Amino acid sequence: MSNRHDLQLRQRAAKVVPGGMTGHLNAASLPAGYPQFFERGQGCRVWDVDGNEYIDFMCSWGPNLLGHHHPVVDEAARRQQALGDCLDGPTARFVELAERFVARSAHADWVLFQKNGTDATTVCLMVARAATGKRKVLVATKAYHGADPWCTPIPQGITPEDRAHLIHYTYNDIASLEAAVAQAGTDLAAIVCAAFKHDLGIDQELPTPEFARRARELCDQAGAALILDEVRAGFRVHAGGSWETVGVRPDLSAWSKSIANGYALAAVTGVDALREAATRIYTTGSFWSGGVAMAAGLATIEVADAQDVVGHVQAMGQRFRDGIAAQSASHGVPVRQTGPAALPLILFDEDPGYDKGAVFTVEALRRGVYLHPKHNMFLSLAHTVQDIDRALQATDAGLCRRRPTLRPPLSRSHVRVPETRTPQ
Amino acid sequence: MSNRHDLQLRQRAAKVVPGGMTGHLNAASLPAGYPQFFERGQGCRVWDVDGNEYIDFMCSWGPNLLGHHHPVVDEAARRQQALGDCLDGPTARFVELAERFVARSAHADWVLFQKNGTDATTVCLMVARAATGKRKVLVATKAYHGADPWCTPIPQGITPEDRAHLIHYTYNDIASLEAAVAQAGTDLAAIVCAAFKHDLGIDQELPTPEFARRARELCDQAGAALILDEVRAGFRVHAGGSWETVGVRPDLSAWSKSIANGYALAAVTGVDALREAATRIYTTGSFWSGGVAMAAGLATIEVADAQDVVGHVQAMGQRFRDGIAAQSASHGVPVRQTGPAALPLILFDEDPGYDKGAVFTVEALRRGVYLHPKHNMFLSLAHTVQDIDRALQATDAGLCRRRPTLRPPLSRSHVRVPETRTPQ
Repeated sequence: MSNRHDLQLRQRAAKVVPGGMTGHLNAASLPAGYPQFFERGQGCRVWDVDGNEYIDFMCSWGPNLLGHHHPVVDEAARRQQALGDCLDGPTARFVELAERFVARSAHADWVLFQKNGTDATTVCLMVARAATGKRKVLVATKAYHGADPWCTPIPQGITPEDRAHLIHYTYNDIASLEAAVAQAGTDLAAIVCAAFKHDLGIDQELPTPEFARRARELCDQAGAALILDEVRAGFRVHAGGSWETVGVRPDLSAWSKSIANGYALAAVTGVDALREAATRIYTTGSFWSGGVAMAAGLATIEVADAQDVVGHVQAMGQRFRDGIAAQSASHGVPVRQTGPAALPLILFDEDPGYDKGAVFTVEALRRGVYLHPKHNMFLSLAHTVQDIDRALQATDAGLCRRRPTLRPPLSRSHVRVPETRTPQ
Repeated sequence: MSNRHDLQLRQRAAKVVPGGMTGHLNAASLPAGYPQFFERGQGCRVWDVDGNEYIDFMCSWGPNLLGHHHPVVDEAARRQQALGDCLDGPTARFVELAERFVARSAHADWVLFQKNGTDATTVCLMVARAATGKRKVLVATKAYHGADPWCTPIPQGITPEDRAHLIHYTYNDIASLEAAVAQAGTDLAAIVCAAFKHDLGIDQELPTPEFARRARELCDQAGAALILDEVRAGFRVHAGGSWETVGVRPDLSAWSKSIANGYALAAVTGVDALREAATRIYTTGSFWSGGVAMAAGLATIEVADAQDVVGHVQAMGQRFRDGIAAQSASHGVPVRQTGPAALPLILFDEDPGYDKGAVFTVEALRRGVYLHPKHNMFLSLAHTVQDIDRALQATDAGLCRRRPTLRPPLSRSHVRVPETRTPQ
């Protein structure tokens, strides 16, 4: 399994990029052996710059919902690109996509578009504060809502004032939520909830219906906005919005990642009561109205709904989960699998440093399966039963504790000369 | 000049988008008669959804540096798209583009990439604060540095704490800058300067060498970072960085808009002394490492340098400026033309409500020339002498105060049935 090109690029990057790479795609946060640089993708497969092929369970950390190079999405994007992308105003795709979001999202009366998930969560806070004239925002401890100064998980280069009006609660803990609301007093602007609890490195939790309903009640009583962060979960849990599964509708939802199948797009949807406030805030970006990502978004929704992507990713995720559970039992290696099956997380018991997770995922990686040892993963419409079963062959090696030495890869098919090496 | 499709889209948008449109592309901020929705672009021309053709002096508010559908850029993007865009890690384009920025930007030792101009300016603040451990940031009064809570020009939905550590100075006013530095005391993290003064609706100003040098000195004395906001000006004033024109190098520069010719990309460049701080902050976005925009960025730089885009846009801007000046003198209508010729601004004397500007630009618009009455405009590599001279025929009507009634358009060529009406 060659990594020569990856090493060369890392050496070059070390000179011109701080730390060689930053952010969530930094391979330094993964076990040794993971590639940093990628060459291409097709369906649910990715190839690194050394031509190693992987069945991909990260899906670009979410965006790849339908598979790389989905023909309907790429054709829609290509047609829009042939007309124009970034112009002096939006294209008709802007209106068409806003209409589709409103028609599809259970709570949504209007839409604003952005580029980053962080843009969307930040816009939600601005709308809530503009609407209420209040300042306090409740967020769950350790929840990830983006990487602006108010929310970045590594608080470097920020000031205390960036978080002066945040109050923390514990996800699914009604008493802690009530205490946080009490702390906000008459100054509560919003409660922010992730669609489900998907904090790095700890077991995931679906929202309990009681917690979701209580959050809704508390917002209604205070005149505050209930903000649902759908950036991670959106389009994989429920087509109408993730909390349709618990019968609770938010006032604002933040969307990004999968909504345009990898084309850069984010959105905020909101209820009519917040429409006027949404006209008063001023946020914008040079590329937020670009037509290509919106054309891709329209096609993504068309395909997602026509082919029941939610049902598919849940079924494929469940098949993977069942297979892992069987291997875990067979090998006597306890694992915890939590959260929606479509966004699976696998953690090992007694593994505070994720060392077992590292062994497990590196063994799978060597056999052509790209997993993550402590972040939730993602299924796509492109994952087939055959892909899942093929991946389970690879995971078996990692879970086999009685055979700690490496077995040869099941196949060399993932180590091949790349088809294209010419740099751009 | 039909606007039927534009009106239909506005009616639809009014239902699903707060206020029908938001942000800098909201046509509500333009005189009546301007289209809101656009169909396509080619070179320096854009077509609205009713098929009206315009010679475009806004260039998508900056991003269109080389002309819409520049073949080199679009081919590079198409080739990368065929491989992959948003993957589990960056592509080799990431490293190649970082290397190009470092080679090209006079001060730059390293690069971080983002999507929005606001991302870039915010990252600059975070790096400066992480490096210095200090909080105060100096910004010029009325300067636009993005639309996050700390900088949005319309402070709705924000809290006072979002701006707790901003101190204001007056651009090009050394005494005010010194006073602001004194106010920061021992807590100065950064001085932020726009590449030139380009505040909405007032005369632009190039930086004086004395002001730029003093800003540099004050940062050096305080151990603070000098941040240059190149989002607006970058790639149109000087290839190596806009303050090369005054012989002053920043510690950090924020780039976006034109750097990938309309593909969504932003970047921060910095000096070695800030590299370690840049590894400590945590900012990221789902699409920040996307290969397509980086391939477009590489091609944009290649073309920009090979064809001296800076020289071209300055020459075309100067030809336009000279023509406007001649018309102004001829018709006895004083105008003020300020800032770099490549980013021209035309304001009228005694025009506090921009009513003269509105008449001028609407007359030009009716004759197929898209101008802005109070925001700086942008030239591109695609603007030819013929385009400028054709535009000057149109502006003559707007400047002719003795003939306030509308003359017939010089040509009907800009009112045509669009070639493509099929949505998507």
